Amino acid sequence: MYDMAMELKTDGAKCLYEQIYEHIREEIKGGRLLSGERLPSTRALAEYLQVSRTTVDFAYGQLLSEGYIEAIPYKGYFVCRMEELPEGNSQALPDDDRMTEAKKEESIPYNGNICYDFSPNGLDMSLFPFGVWKRISKNILNDGNKELFALGEAQGDYDLRQTISRYLHSARGVKCTPSQIVVGAGNDYLLLLLEKLLGRHAGIAMENPTYKRAYRIFRSFAYNIEVIGVDEGGMKVEELRKKQVKAAYVMPSHQYPTGITMPIGRRMELLKWAAEGEERFLIEDDYDSEFRYKGKPIPSLQGADGNGRVIYIGTFSKAIAPAIRVSYMVLPPLLLKRYRESCSFYSSTVSRIDQRILNEFIRDGYFERYLNKTRKLYREKHDILLQELKPFRKKFQIFGENAGLHLVLSSRDEKLTEEYLIRKAAEHGVKVYGMSDALIEENDGKRQAEGMLVLGYGGLRAEEIKEGMAKLKQAWL
Amino acid sequence: MYDMAMELKTDGAKCLYEQIYEHIREEIKGGRLLSGERLPSTRALAEYLQVSRTTVDFAYGQLLSEGYIEAIPYKGYFVCRMEELPEGNSQALPDDDRMTEAKKEESIPYNGNICYDFSPNGLDMSLFPFGVWKRISKNILNDGNKELFALGEAQGDYDLRQTISRYLHSARGVKCTPSQIVVGAGNDYLLLLLEKLLGRHAGIAMENPTYKRAYRIFRSFAYNIEVIGVDEGGMKVEELRKKQVKAAYVMPSHQYPTGITMPIGRRMELLKWAAEGEERFLIEDDYDSEFRYKGKPIPSLQGADGNGRVIYIGTFSKAIAPAIRVSYMVLPPLLLKRYRESCSFYSSTVSRIDQRILNEFIRDGYFERYLNKTRKLYREKHDILLQELKPFRKKFQIFGENAGLHLVLSSRDEKLTEEYLIRKAAEHGVKVYGMSDALIEENDGKRQAEGMLVLGYGGLRAEEIKEGMAKLKQAWL
Repeated sequence: MYDMAMELKTDGAKCLYEQIYEHIREEIKGGRLLSGERLPSTRALAEYLQVSRTTVDFAYGQLLSEGYIEAIPYKGYFVCRMEELPEGNSQALPDDDRMTEAKKEESIPYNGNICYDFSPNGLDMSLFPFGVWKRISKNILNDGNKELFALGEAQGDYDLRQTISRYLHSARGVKCTPSQIVVGAGNDYLLLLLEKLLGRHAGIAMENPTYKRAYRIFRSFAYNIEVIGVDEGGMKVEELRKKQVKAAYVMPSHQYPTGITMPIGRRMELLKWAAEGEERFLIEDDYDSEFRYKGKPIPSLQGADGNGRVIYIGTFSKAIAPAIRVSYMVLPPLLLKRYRESCSFYSSTVSRIDQRILNEFIRDGYFERYLNKTRKLYREKHDILLQELKPFRKKFQIFGENAGLHLVLSSRDEKLTEEYLIRKAAEHGVKVYGMSDALIEENDGKRQAEGMLVLGYGGLRAEEIKEGMAKLKQAWL
Repeated sequence: MYDMAMELKTDGAKCLYEQIYEHIREEIKGGRLLSGERLPSTRALAEYLQVSRTTVDFAYGQLLSEGYIEAIPYKGYFVCRMEELPEGNSQALPDDDRMTEAKKEESIPYNGNICYDFSPNGLDMSLFPFGVWKRISKNILNDGNKELFALGEAQGDYDLRQTISRYLHSARGVKCTPSQIVVGAGNDYLLLLLEKLLGRHAGIAMENPTYKRAYRIFRSFAYNIEVIGVDEGGMKVEELRKKQVKAAYVMPSHQYPTGITMPIGRRMELLKWAAEGEERFLIEDDYDSEFRYKGKPIPSLQGADGNGRVIYIGTFSKAIAPAIRVSYMVLPPLLLKRYRESCSFYSSTVSRIDQRILNEFIRDGYFERYLNKTRKLYREKHDILLQELKPFRKKFQIFGENAGLHLVLSSRDEKLTEEYLIRKAAEHGVKVYGMSDALIEENDGKRQAEGMLVLGYGGLRAEEIKEGMAKLKQAWL
């Protein structure tokens, strides 16, 4: 067995499990621990290093989840046989992760300690009514008969679809019947279905910058992606008109990452474009429409569509909890027909129990109450952030601050690059995210997001926002 | 509003809700109720017809779920605006539905009343430990912290993957580490992922007859499907060798629908074929391997593979309950690498809560206990069916009777066609299924399943099997 001697520091800079994890990882990366080689048991290593077994468990757990080592039942831990070791891309990326590229970077922190993370993916679940959720779950299990364990309808259970259609009608102005709704386990899955409906080799127009996860998924299809520029109103329709595409992917209520809310004029232009061709669609990703801080809620693009050209996609992963793997797609009649003809044999991906819990959670008003509370919570954070941003306004412009859980900072000084701003922030213990992570480059599109940052505040407490912004002041002003 | 006068018979031949449902359905099909037209409220119709409101609710519910009518929130029920009315293909088809075509037929019953349904999809959940499942669920909800509501790993939670790998190792001889397992919401979803791993335009070899659902899914991909004949050992490898395909889809433990258990020799031939090419894979669908009544359990094809060429797919939808939307796929290293590079950004489709319930259910021995009980239960049914089949042996050959939940009857008299046998059975109140439903016709393959039937017994009680077989005796002998 490999000699596991390693020097553990107890100066508190790094905890023990991290040191063990890093040591073994480097041994594997450096080829000193060979693939297939057996690691000592956690018990043996803990004894040898004179640390608790839990510490070694943690370290092995980390190595396991990153794919460096494997556990073979009843045999032990072995270095992975993978031809190439993972580069951190096996980690879980949430559905509503609007900055997957940025996430990756987290594994390469600047050497200082990051204390404040303005991640655009941060969520605050402190107000989530866990008790209510548990109670509903238990009641359903208690009352539930064996039907619950049977397979439900492929599109999702009718009750849930009816509840969703009511919610979408009242909250988002979506005009649809339950029969148009397809419920699925996450947006990614629904996009997989959509590929079957739009057909292979479809051309898809995307804004630049855009939601990188959707881009990656569309790229994994046989889609031809056309990159369309954005101005202050969102996707430029005159550019779109020059392209041969079947669908345009937009986020009209709050574009990621620019934060633009698409004005009604641009919406009408888009709908007109869609109505003109024989088979043109708009994919409306309404992902954080629940949170709006200024003016009236803006109804969905779908609600303004009179020609059956909008595919509306939403998720409960952001508004309820990432673990709630329930998204929904509202199909226009033409695609609904195609779904029934060619896709309805795909079994439902959501268990009936989960569908019923969610149905009751929404139907009985808990969802709305929770949304109202979180909207208030996020608005407070949002207001604090804007307050703290006042001294920055001389050097930065602020965009997209009326909705969602992030806003955009743009440096007025062209010389202050994104990379510089991120590095300076990190030196002060603050993690901020560059807009360029959301840029896509098909053909020869250039990266033009110098000096632009995405600042998410959903996951930080009010105090943390204040402290983090004070640090950023030191870093940038 | 449309005149809803209809004559309801109370002679008990058909229940009231069925009569209302059928009446409205025919009105829609016949164009007397036009698309977009509003139906009377359930209250109004119930009063008018002098039936209970529940009866009308049931009828509307049926029409809704079949897509004939729609419910528009706060407005009422309307005839669907679909360009073409559904032909029953929007109904839920379970993952393990090995006879989707046959299912469709159920909506066109012969006029007699079917009392005994030998559906190959029938399951017996009478022994399912609902209490245990509920208790585990409750405990998890009670103990569970907020982590449960966070998104888990894309491949599935490590604990569950470890438990699955242990189970597969001991029960099916599958050699894998948890890192090779991808957990997903149903086989259909996993096949969608597999499309991304095998690449577009891959050639796929399938047996004929085969599992029609997999065929339909592969067809919905850009796959070139090559139909390979079967003999008593399963897929003919010499035919396979003549085709340019990347993968062959097989069910070695119990082929659907022929019931063939692939002998070791044929397995070796298949593995050899796969090992020879640069990138060749075998997709092993091990769907009802849990149930075997004669001889030792036959280990998986995957376990015999020394070259990393087998993609092993299994599901808990059949062995636990159709509602448990958890399937798993064991990827060989080459495809695992590709998954990590190009697919690991697809979020997990199964909620962490469900993963944890399932994990504890298996880990704590309940799954194995339940399997042992159901195996015994199905074996009893199987033995009764074989006993009752004795008088049929003169006229029929029996195949595939050592495993799974169905067997195959083949008429020795070539003049007795499948269609004739099904019709005669129906006249005696028994529903049987034709083998030809599982035939696929790519190129100019001919239908050669005349006089062959699939007899499923999982969903029938012992008494029902006896009674049904007595009826079949009258019908056929």
